[in-house]
Amino acid sequence: MRYSSLFAKTNKAAPADADSTNARLLIQGGFVDQLSAGIYTFLPLGLRVLNKIKTIVREEMDAVGGQEVLMPALIPKGPWETTKRWDSIDVLFKLVGAGEKEFALGPTHEEVVTPLVQAFVKSYKDLPVSAYQIQDKFRNEARAKSGLLRGREFSMKDMYSFHVSLEDLDAYYDTVGERYAKLFQRMGLDAIKTEASGGVFSKYSHEYQVATPYGEDLIYVCDKCRWSVNREIAEVKDGDACAKCGGKIHETKSIEVGNIFKLSTRFADDFGFTVALEDGTQGKVWMGCYGIGMSRLMGSIVEVWHDDRGIIWPKSVAPFAVCLVSLGSKDADVAGRVSQSASDLHDELAKAGVEVLWDDRVGVSAGEKFADADLLGMPLRLVVSEKTLAQESVEWKERSCPDSRLISQADILESIQSFLAL
Amino acid sequence: MRYSSLFAKTNKAAPADADSTNARLLIQGGFVDQLSAGIYTFLPLGLRVLNKIKTIVREEMDAVGGQEVLMPALIPKGPWETTKRWDSIDVLFKLVGAGEKEFALGPTHEEVVTPLVQAFVKSYKDLPVSAYQIQDKFRNEARAKSGLLRGREFSMKDMYSFHVSLEDLDAYYDTVGERYAKLFQRMGLDAIKTEASGGVFSKYSHEYQVATPYGEDLIYVCDKCRWSVNREIAEVKDGDACAKCGGKIHETKSIEVGNIFKLSTRFADDFGFTVALEDGTQGKVWMGCYGIGMSRLMGSIVEVWHDDRGIIWPKSVAPFAVCLVSLGSKDADVAGRVSQSASDLHDELAKAGVEVLWDDRVGVSAGEKFADADLLGMPLRLVVSEKTLAQESVEWKERSCPDSRLISQADILESIQSFLAL
Repeated sequence: MRYSSLFAKTNKAAPADADSTNARLLIQGGFVDQLSAGIYTFLPLGLRVLNKIKTIVREEMDAVGGQEVLMPALIPKGPWETTKRWDSIDVLFKLVGAGEKEFALGPTHEEVVTPLVQAFVKSYKDLPVSAYQIQDKFRNEARAKSGLLRGREFSMKDMYSFHVSLEDLDAYYDTVGERYAKLFQRMGLDAIKTEASGGVFSKYSHEYQVATPYGEDLIYVCDKCRWSVNREIAEVKDGDACAKCGGKIHETKSIEVGNIFKLSTRFADDFGFTVALEDGTQGKVWMGCYGIGMSRLMGSIVEVWHDDRGIIWPKSVAPFAVCLVSLGSKDADVAGRVSQSASDLHDELAKAGVEVLWDDRVGVSAGEKFADADLLGMPLRLVVSEKTLAQESVEWKERSCPDSRLISQADILESIQSFLAL
Repeated sequence: MRYSSLFAKTNKAAPADADSTNARLLIQGGFVDQLSAGIYTFLPLGLRVLNKIKTIVREEMDAVGGQEVLMPALIPKGPWETTKRWDSIDVLFKLVGAGEKEFALGPTHEEVVTPLVQAFVKSYKDLPVSAYQIQDKFRNEARAKSGLLRGREFSMKDMYSFHVSLEDLDAYYDTVGERYAKLFQRMGLDAIKTEASGGVFSKYSHEYQVATPYGEDLIYVCDKCRWSVNREIAEVKDGDACAKCGGKIHETKSIEVGNIFKLSTRFADDFGFTVALEDGTQGKVWMGCYGIGMSRLMGSIVEVWHDDRGIIWPKSVAPFAVCLVSLGSKDADVAGRVSQSASDLHDELAKAGVEVLWDDRVGVSAGEKFADADLLGMPLRLVVSEKTLAQESVEWKERSCPDSRLISQADILESIQSFLAL
C-alpha cells in the first residue's frame, strides 16, 4: 500500500489530550483518533493492528473449543434485574427507548449468554459448552484514562463456559489459562498469571499481568517460580521469600491484559438453569468467564514495545511487516529511477504476500521519512535511494536494531521471508 | 465441523415472536436468537453468514478505494449540535454518562467522519478521500419489526466520500453505484437501482431495491430498461409506458438493501471544513454517503432465497458449502462403518478447503436429519448410508434442485469443486 493513499497521516506534535504513552504514540502515528475521553476511532493503520489481535485471539479461543457468537450491546433491563446487577454495577450506561423500555449497554454479557445457552442445553450430555464473542463493550467510567487501557467504549473478547460439575469447570479453567499464556506470547507480551480477588463468586480469580513501569496495577512476583499475586489481596511484600519455592518476591507495576474467573453456579441459579442428569434428577450448571480486552491489548503492546522514537510493533500484530522508503533527488531522472525501483520492489513483495507500506511521498525529506518510519514502527525498514540503486542493493534496517546494512536486490525477498519466519 | 459440537441447534416449533419469514427461518435454523424486539444474537452458523457478507462488502469497498476505519457508537452531543441533528433525528438513542455528559448512539456517522477527515485533509491535493466502516448501529425505533430487516441494533457498512467539486463527487457516486450492483449480485440478489427522495441535501438519492412479495417498500420498475422509482416520489403508475424507453412500468413490493446519497456541502459547511485550492483560496468540500445494512442483507437474502422447507443459501454466503448427513442403522457394525466413512469424507473435504458441516448426530432419524438439512439450507447435501456404502457412492442433492443422484466416492471432491466454482 502506498502511504500517500492513506488519508490519516502521522502528526508531528504530541497531542495535548494524550494522557499516556500508548495514546500519544498511537495518535501521533495516525493509528487512532480520540473522539472523546475513552472513546476512539480506529484509523486504517490502527484497524489493521486491532484486526490482527482479534485474529490471534479467535484462533486461540477456537483451539480450546470456543464457539464464536455475537451478542448485542443493547441489553433490556429484565435480565439485569434477574441477576440483581441493574443497580450494583456502577459503570452501566443506562438508556430509555421508545415505549419507556429501559436498556443497559453491556460491559459484560452473563445476562445474555446464560439464558441463551439455557434455551438450547437441556441435558448433561449437551455440556460442556463454551461460547465467546469479540464485541464492543461500554463502561460509564467516571474518569476514562490511559489511552486505550481504560475506555468508555472498547473491544473485548469475552468467553463463557458451562459445565455439569465444578471438577469439569476446574479442568477447563486450567486449559484456558494455559492457552492465555500462549496467546499473549504470540503478541510479544510476557503475561504473568496472577492471583486476584475472586469477588463474591469464588476465592480467587486469575489476572494476566504484563510488568511495565507504565502499569496501573501493582503485583508481587517470585523471581524464580513466577508465582504472582495482585496487591489487592497480597500477604507478601517486596523482598519476601516465596512460600512456594523460596525464591525472592519482587514488586512491580503492571497492566492487566486478561482475566479468568470461576462464576460457580451464581448466574445459572439466577436464571433457574439446570440440566437433566444421568440419574434423572436436575443438576446445577457451573460457569467460568474469560476476558481479554482487544483495544486494551493494543495499548498494552505499545506501552511495552516502544522507544523514544516511536512504536516497535511485534511482527505478529504489525499493520505492515515492511516500511519501504523511497528517497527523492534533485535530479528528476534519478528520482524517477528510484521511484520506479521502489514501485517494482513494492509490487514484488506484495505479490509474494509480504505486507508492505511504501512511503512514496514526494517532497518529504529523508529525515522526515525516517522519523515517520520509526514512529510507525513496522518491524523492517527498507530504503531505496540513488546510493542503494548504484549498488544494486536495498538498505535494510530492523526497527528493533540500531544498525542498517545493504542487501542485494536479488536476495531481498528471501531475506524478508527468513526475517518474518523467525 | 460436527453438528453435534454446536450448542445452538435447529428449533422444531416456529417461534411465537417471529413476525417475518426471515426471522422465523433464521430462529428455527439456529442462526440467530432474539433478545428483544429488533435486537438479535448471532449464533455460530448465523455469524458465519454475517462474516461472509462483511467480507464481500469489504472487498467491493476496497475496490473503489474505500479506506476502512472503525468509529465509535458512542458520540458526544457536541457534533450533533453542530449539525443541528440532536433534536431532528427522531430515532437517536440518547444517554447521559458520568459528569452529566450527553451522548447519542450513532445511527449514522457524518458527525464523526466529517471532523475526522477534516483533521487530516488540508489541501485539494489530499482529495478525494473515501472512508468506510462496518460497525454496529442503533435506532430507537418505535416499532422494530420484520426480523433482521428493521432492527434497533444492527450491523451497517457506511462509507463517506469527500471531494473538491460536485463533478468529482458525481463521478465517484456513479462508480460506487455500479459497484453496488455487482456486490449484490455476488450475494444472489438482483438489486434494482431506484430513484428516491434526495431529502434536504439534493434532488434524488438512489436506493437498491430487491423485488420480493415480502418487501416493505413499493417501487415502479420498467420491464425493459429497468429504470425504477420509489413510490414516495413516483409520478408513474402500474401499466404506464416508461418515459425513458417506452417499456411497461410494473409495480412491485421490494426490500431496500442499500442506498447512495449526495450530501452536497451540507456537513462540511457545518464543520467549517474547506480545503486550500490551487489558486490559494479555500474551496468547499463535497460529500457523498453510501450505506448497506449487513444484518438487513442477511434477512433480505432469506426473504428471497427460501422455500417452504427452509433457507436456500447462495453459495457465496452459505455458512457451509456442504451439509454431510450420515444415517444410522440398527446394526451397530453397519452404523460404525457409515460413521467412519462419513468421518473420512469430512476430513478429506475439510483438508481440501471445502467447508463442510457434518450432521453426525446419533439417534436422530433420517427424516429429521433431511428436514434439518433443508431448513439449514447449505447449497449441497451429501448422504452417507448403508445403501451408498454398498455402492461405493455418496448421495448428492443440491438444495435448489428436487432430485438426488449417486456419485462415486472417488469423484466426490472433484464434483464438489466444480459445483462450487459455478
